[in-house]
Amino acid sequence: MADVPLGPLAVSLGDPAGIGPEVVAKCWDRRSEFNLPPFVAIGDPRSIGNIWDGPIEIIDDPRQADAAFDCGLPLIQIAAAEGDLPGRPSVSGAHCSLDSLEIAVGLARSGSAAAVVTGPVSKEQLYSIGFSHPGQTEFVAERCGVGRGNVAMMLAGPTLRTVPVTTHVPFAEVTDHLSSALIEARGRTTLRGLQRNFGIADPTLAVSGLNPHSGEGGSLGREEIELIEPAIAALRAEGWRVTGPHPADTMFHAAARARYDAALCMYHDQALIPLKALHFEDGVNVTLGLPIIRTAPDHGTAFDIAGQDNADPRPMASAIRMAAFCAAHRETAE
Amino acid sequence: MADVPLGPLAVSLGDPAGIGPEVVAKCWDRRSEFNLPPFVAIGDPRSIGNIWDGPIEIIDDPRQADAAFDCGLPLIQIAAAEGDLPGRPSVSGAHCSLDSLEIAVGLARSGSAAAVVTGPVSKEQLYSIGFSHPGQTEFVAERCGVGRGNVAMMLAGPTLRTVPVTTHVPFAEVTDHLSSALIEARGRTTLRGLQRNFGIADPTLAVSGLNPHSGEGGSLGREEIELIEPAIAALRAEGWRVTGPHPADTMFHAAARARYDAALCMYHDQALIPLKALHFEDGVNVTLGLPIIRTAPDHGTAFDIAGQDNADPRPMASAIRMAAFCAAHRETAE
Repeated sequence: MADVPLGPLAVSLGDPAGIGPEVVAKCWDRRSEFNLPPFVAIGDPRSIGNIWDGPIEIIDDPRQADAAFDCGLPLIQIAAAEGDLPGRPSVSGAHCSLDSLEIAVGLARSGSAAAVVTGPVSKEQLYSIGFSHPGQTEFVAERCGVGRGNVAMMLAGPTLRTVPVTTHVPFAEVTDHLSSALIEARGRTTLRGLQRNFGIADPTLAVSGLNPHSGEGGSLGREEIELIEPAIAALRAEGWRVTGPHPADTMFHAAARARYDAALCMYHDQALIPLKALHFEDGVNVTLGLPIIRTAPDHGTAFDIAGQDNADPRPMASAIRMAAFCAAHRETAE
Repeated sequence: MADVPLGPLAVSLGDPAGIGPEVVAKCWDRRSEFNLPPFVAIGDPRSIGNIWDGPIEIIDDPRQADAAFDCGLPLIQIAAAEGDLPGRPSVSGAHCSLDSLEIAVGLARSGSAAAVVTGPVSKEQLYSIGFSHPGQTEFVAERCGVGRGNVAMMLAGPTLRTVPVTTHVPFAEVTDHLSSALIEARGRTTLRGLQRNFGIADPTLAVSGLNPHSGEGGSLGREEIELIEPAIAALRAEGWRVTGPHPADTMFHAAARARYDAALCMYHDQALIPLKALHFEDGVNVTLGLPIIRTAPDHGTAFDIAGQDNADPRPMASAIRMAAFCAAHRETAE
């Protein structure tokens, strides 16, 4: 994978007080073992120095990353005013993580980077500096000129890909947020994403029900009949392969997973419970619907363990590998 | 396990037109391979003869089952008036399945059988003959003189046991059904069941949250704070080991599962998605809170494949083995 003829991957370190800098540095250390292509980190080198004493190659142009990658971790420098310490999030760290993200997205938008991989940020800290997006995904979408309704968060593991229709909304409000139009839009984004990011020419999408046993014909809830089936019919009318609504509890065993390329789920935990039960260490967050490739490890800043050298770099390595995989397929698809 | 010094297990065949008779007969055929103790089937022998030509030993007292088990499938006979055919459910079949269940429960109540294993019934058919319980579980509870609120449905697989607080209610009504009192009652039933049925002297119960990320301190929903945490506190005050509320998506990977004996989940799919993703072929339904042992395979009548010799007997075999396991532990515990 290391010889994909694209720019390097741009990896934002995320919050300098979280585990982002540590896991990115460890990925460079273990780049051969993890089979990682060249990438350039973007953030405060001090946040890496706090936890790692390996070589850092400060560069100012991603075109230098390829050559630098053999000597050290290539890094485009952004200084947090305060030089944050692990486990001690701060306002200046939040600014640093936002600047890193912005630069990484800009590099991918301009074609200087093949894809963006985002390290974990602290939403609480970002909110304190006026960040008004629910998360990095929506920020990236806006910077790419894509409406929030047209992106989708996919969680991808080796044997399962899931996309939640609704994401970070309280359980009791899920049904208020669900609509045929939203299910249809997320389904279409997912199907196109399977083509563009994963190279699947004629993808199959399995759509979950919302209620136990998919509502049992209406006796245990009518959302399947009123919202989900019409969305499935609309997608099928466009020629897509779409199955469902399936009872959510019988969609995720091995034989069922073999029948589809992605599962469209109605709410956060319906998508994330099976993904993390099966692929806790190697599930990757992939944003679909963007003009660029963006992936992220599916974990947070973990301030509680930052600076202790205990953070597991495998999720970040999976996110970097997935970004390279998608970039290669995007290249082919276009 | 075959030498447990208890009566035989009583296995109701379920609906004579479903796959129950087939999988029970296959379990007898493969009793050595599946490591099954003696059991007696209860139902219409014609429903077995439709799909299986092995030996049936008609008996009228469960004490005969042990000796008969080596020669054929011991069976206490109940005739369906019409002699139902596979895949063709009928009113007389519904009566037959209900009579089988009633007799199996009576044998266990009287001590003539060590436990009850129930084959799959058709709720639609049962409703048509005036059955007024949501399912077999509630019927068994009533026959045992236990209120519905004091039983719990556990799904048990080799590496995970889950118990849903609410079961067959529409998604949108889950929050109406949830209360601290109900969570506490189900938690207590589960903890006692882990002691009595599984021989775990000091069990640990992990309680899930309801909202994404367990509500993130209230910003994504307040049920954790208002309903779940008080229930956990009440159980802890009684001396039980209880953890949570845990974000549901990070409760079910291998390392997390190793930290508890059972997971108490807030709704049907939260409990059944991870169980079936991990243990589709060997998950067993165990009713906790009863004076008797009752297990069931976690599948339905499957009328669509009945009579084709394609039904997988492994879930029924798991249910029979689990019933024997629980009966042996109950014997020790009392």
